[in-house]
Amino acid sequence: MVYSETFFPVRYYETDQMGIVHHSNYIRYFECARNNMMREFGYPIEKCEEDGVTIPIVSLRCNYRHPAMMGDDLKVTASIETVPMAKLFIKQAVFNSEGTLCAEGEVVLGFLSKATGHPTRCPEPLVKAIEAHMGDR
Amino acid sequence: MVYSETFFPVRYYETDQMGIVHHSNYIRYFECARNNMMREFGYPIEKCEEDGVTIPIVSLRCNYRHPAMMGDDLKVTASIETVPMAKLFIKQAVFNSEGTLCAEGEVVLGFLSKATGHPTRCPEPLVKAIEAHMGDR
Amino acid sequence: MVYSETFFPVRYYETDQMGIVHHSNYIRYFECARNNMMREFGYPIEKCEEDGVTIPIVSLRCNYRHPAMMGDDLKVTASIETVPMAKLFIKQAVFNSEGTLCAEGEVVLGFLSKATGHPTRCPEPLVKAIEAHMGDR
Amino acid sequence: MVYSETFFPVRYYETDQMGIVHHSNYIRYFECARNNMMREFGYPIEKCEEDGVTIPIVSLRCNYRHPAMMGDDLKVTASIETVPMAKLFIKQAVFNSEGTLCAEGEVVLGFLSKATGHPTRCPEPLVKAIEAHMGDR
Repeated sequence: MVYSETFFPVRYYETDQMGIVHHSNYIRYFECARNNMMREFGYPIEKCEEDGVTIPIVSLRCNYRHPAMMGDDLKVTASIETVPMAKLFIKQAVFNSEGTLCAEGEVVLGFLSKATGHPTRCPEPLVKAIEAHMGDR
Repeated sequence: MVYSETFFPVRYYETDQMGIVHHSNYIRYFECARNNMMREFGYPIEKCEEDGVTIPIVSLRCNYRHPAMMGDDLKVTASIETVPMAKLFIKQAVFNSEGTLCAEGEVVLGFLSKATGHPTRCPEPLVKAIEAHMGDR
Repeated sequence: MVYSETFFPVRYYETDQMGIVHHSNYIRYFECARNNMMREFGYPIEKCEEDGVTIPIVSLRCNYRHPAMMGDDLKVTASIETVPMAKLFIKQAVFNSEGTLCAEGEVVLGFLSKATGHPTRCPEPLVKAIEAHMGDR
Repeated sequence: MVYSETFFPVRYYETDQMGIVHHSNYIRYFECARNNMMREFGYPIEKCEEDGVTIPIVSLRCNYRHPAMMGDDLKVTASIETVPMAKLFIKQAVFNSEGTLCAEGEVVLGFLSKATGHPTRCPEPLVKAIEAHMGDR
């Protein structure tokens, strides 16, 4: 399994008037973790887009377990269990400073050719990076 | 079925460097439609919170079908099929100016007592409003 | 003077844990009003960008007077006093449901050629629209 | 002078369809740097609010010099030149990975008593921390 962890504090503007992180921000945290993982692969999203492939989202689900709050240092995880062909499946989770699971979910991504506007295969460098890290955990 | 429609244009800051609305914003659009529906019920979220009940999210899923773009006037829908007890299930969708389905999903909400911090029943005014509109469509 | 008004409700995710609209959102409200004005001109920003000119921000200032809250229906204004050459100066304000001034500021915008990446003149259709509306108020 | 630096990468959702970081996000970056500085002081914003004082914004200005982009690791700075009484003046700047100044501005903050809703003095722990660090640079 490919597994990556990203760490950052909650930002004040991410809280809402319930006094907790607004639920939409976990979807953004998931993205931060995915993009940090691609960066660790040596193939960041901006390089992928330069190479002519964008990675739009296909679907997502998220279960909210415990509210993240201002002051929390979050750990956001991304894990991949299968080498992508037409789609990339990523399991994601957010943990707070105490290690409590705040949210977990799954995101499905596709690959789009900027030239044609049509679906394409996962770019070779991303496939290779995922294959190289598949035994990590 | 209770059914509500909310209309607004895409905002520039909601686009990303793919040139489309960032996927996290559909989750926010869903919320706008839910809150507009509560307002139409005569029981807006801020009144509900004043009455001591917050409505945190429990889970959500979203399927992305067609990108919304700058210039689109969106229609965002919310529909409720069952009167809520401990949880409120809302089906949601986003359509663009041409009527194309951009995204559809489901959101599950809970009810939390501000006094105790514990789960509570759906507030009476909200139950009554939902019951009153259940035959609308 | 060219003058335009745009109306929309506060969105829940725009509030923060102070229980008011987060200050960064007024900057976004300003943009919504500017883009709605361009739309009223019959020359929306997406058309302008298609024509090869982007309108990046040069500077802004904002004075915060009164907090906007969930439940408020906002009126956001944009006014232009001089026909733009290299730069466009727009005065902006946000009013709540009671007509109380929540924030006022000024935004300076430039014009950038997408082809060259260099500053360019304000596009003709935008100049003409501003000239046509200059006596409105 | 009190001086603090905060580092983080650009997030994908912060970009817009111009392919650069949306201008409203620099206002949020400024806040991240201020809150990180308070944390370094040992008096984070959430502690200050627990102590009964919120720190709403009074005014801000920002000059945009160079676009930040996806892939940039930003350095965001906050500096304070005078010990706050009723107001806190903070100079702020954002630099990209190459050290290029992307934006600079100034933010003025007030202090509000949660109990009375009225303006109050800067909390003692924050005054003391600022005094203690005033000679740092």
